[in-house]
Amino acid sequence: MTTQVIVLNGGSSAGKSAIVRCLQAVLPDPWLALGTDTLVDVMPASMLTSDGGIGFAPDGEVSVGPQFRALEAAWIEGVAAMARAGARIIVDEVFLGGADSQRRWRDALGDLPVLWVGVRCDAVVAAAREIARGDRTVGMAASQADLVHRGVTYDLEVDTAKTESLDCARTIAAHTT
Amino acid sequence: MTTQVIVLNGGSSAGKSAIVRCLQAVLPDPWLALGTDTLVDVMPASMLTSDGGIGFAPDGEVSVGPQFRALEAAWIEGVAAMARAGARIIVDEVFLGGADSQRRWRDALGDLPVLWVGVRCDAVVAAAREIARGDRTVGMAASQADLVHRGVTYDLEVDTAKTESLDCARTIAAHTT
Amino acid sequence: MTTQVIVLNGGSSAGKSAIVRCLQAVLPDPWLALGTDTLVDVMPASMLTSDGGIGFAPDGEVSVGPQFRALEAAWIEGVAAMARAGARIIVDEVFLGGADSQRRWRDALGDLPVLWVGVRCDAVVAAAREIARGDRTVGMAASQADLVHRGVTYDLEVDTAKTESLDCARTIAAHTT
Amino acid sequence: MTTQVIVLNGGSSAGKSAIVRCLQAVLPDPWLALGTDTLVDVMPASMLTSDGGIGFAPDGEVSVGPQFRALEAAWIEGVAAMARAGARIIVDEVFLGGADSQRRWRDALGDLPVLWVGVRCDAVVAAAREIARGDRTVGMAASQADLVHRGVTYDLEVDTAKTESLDCARTIAAHTT
Repeated sequence: MTTQVIVLNGGSSAGKSAIVRCLQAVLPDPWLALGTDTLVDVMPASMLTSDGGIGFAPDGEVSVGPQFRALEAAWIEGVAAMARAGARIIVDEVFLGGADSQRRWRDALGDLPVLWVGVRCDAVVAAAREIARGDRTVGMAASQADLVHRGVTYDLEVDTAKTESLDCARTIAAHTT
Repeated sequence: MTTQVIVLNGGSSAGKSAIVRCLQAVLPDPWLALGTDTLVDVMPASMLTSDGGIGFAPDGEVSVGPQFRALEAAWIEGVAAMARAGARIIVDEVFLGGADSQRRWRDALGDLPVLWVGVRCDAVVAAAREIARGDRTVGMAASQADLVHRGVTYDLEVDTAKTESLDCARTIAAHTT
Repeated sequence: MTTQVIVLNGGSSAGKSAIVRCLQAVLPDPWLALGTDTLVDVMPASMLTSDGGIGFAPDGEVSVGPQFRALEAAWIEGVAAMARAGARIIVDEVFLGGADSQRRWRDALGDLPVLWVGVRCDAVVAAAREIARGDRTVGMAASQADLVHRGVTYDLEVDTAKTESLDCARTIAAHTT
Repeated sequence: MTTQVIVLNGGSSAGKSAIVRCLQAVLPDPWLALGTDTLVDVMPASMLTSDGGIGFAPDGEVSVGPQFRALEAAWIEGVAAMARAGARIIVDEVFLGGADSQRRWRDALGDLPVLWVGVRCDAVVAAAREIARGDRTVGMAASQADLVHRGVTYDLEVDTAKTESLDCARTIAAHTT
């Protein structure tokens, strides 16, 4: 059965986006890249400041309100529908809720052939890369590095602290069927 | 029946994105903004250079290949599924195929309550705004200004050459139910 | 004497950047575009959060500290030196200090041939365009619309609420010598 | 004598920008970051397509015409003037001309205290990172990796293939006086 969806899960600054771009370059067919960042981009700017939306505390902690959750649930349904309609999709996610987050995606994706990939990065290295990105909010990398993997199960894990993005992508691509 | 989807159709540089941001600001609920630009962003970079993807000629003409069309079809299904799952969605589109493009969206959206909005802008004004945006490819605005409206039917039309984006958005918002 | 520097002054969301891009397109020679936004971009991210840097209050008011002022003074000297070394330069500025801001630039530019241009935009229109840009901080446009012109003298004024950017640029270009 | 200018030289995708952001974060005073990318950004878009400007061949080779060179010469003078006026400046450069490029900067910087830093990155690693960045033009990283260091002399060299950006930045910061 051909892999239809690749789900990458990892903390902020773990290097997921770089792997996604490499995957899009090395996989023979065109894959769509849809992730948490895309969802935040297509939401109203007010969702970043309202109580019901998504909030980034000065220490890097992320809080998610009911309006965000409702839109996210519909978003996940839609992404699954795109895959069912034939698009190959790389989902680039931050499972803030660990196993609960994975369950939400698993329920929506149903019997689609999915490759679950954990993107690991040592918390100290991720925090250093967060500074290198020049983002104003520092702290997300450290607070999410382990949190997002709690209770999550994978077909494959890669470690960006030890392996270049392109090599991670090649390993992942070799596991697609 | 509550409006679930607003489809804005207009040529490049007609001012659709500005209206979308205003709509997201003035509509009381949070709406997702998904458009052609989003789709191009989530595709592999290679789709912008390969024969099967999307091409921008030096004169501004846009050509679309079979791989692009296949991904687009799945994308449209997914956006419709998001709306069915409860998300309110503003679709920001360039109907290069005129009535055919509208039919593709209409078929996918089915019996969802849709508000169809034409975003008009005089070709000369749109071409001037294209220069003001600093894009490298000049010519899309002029070539698309009329083309994208051929055979398309609307519930409402706005004209950004005569009306500020925020006022266009308020007019559109007043037509949602 | 050939115009060497064009200084555009106007409030946030008055449409200066669009005019700058049009000027770069219509002027026969290549001109560098350097402005307040460039300066903020090249400063450390911490300058946007530290007391000595530049701050944006929730109501849109901008406060500028001593460290920002010191770097800005050196920046202005450098831009003047670029012009003296032969580069033609469009300066895109927000004179928060009105006449005082203009004096700082005038002192640095010395006897270079400068065209001073006021970019006006009705406060209500500028505030509407601020919403259309989707910036998170709303209020700068309204608070700066008149403030930045206090005591400033111009060779030429344009009004983006009444005239498209490209036409403003053509008028300005016609005044260069 | 206090270091006033840090010049980083390295090929495309060697990781200079990440080091610059880390330097701005770890150095105790605010430093301006000005580089080749800034210069290209402030030039007219037409300089990327005209014969006299800067061109990027499909294989990644970069060609630079006389108009680009003239503006660049004035730019370098201006950056030196900013430093003389008191700003501390990190220059992020690609010495396409090797020793000749260094001479141009050395002549302009005169007796300012400069720290010259070579940013090395193995060509294969740089090429992999170029793919991870998702740029459309691939090939610059490989073609520039060695070229830009020919005949250039440094106070210090760092290697981003072996060392994280933040650690490179800390090493560089420790060499400032």
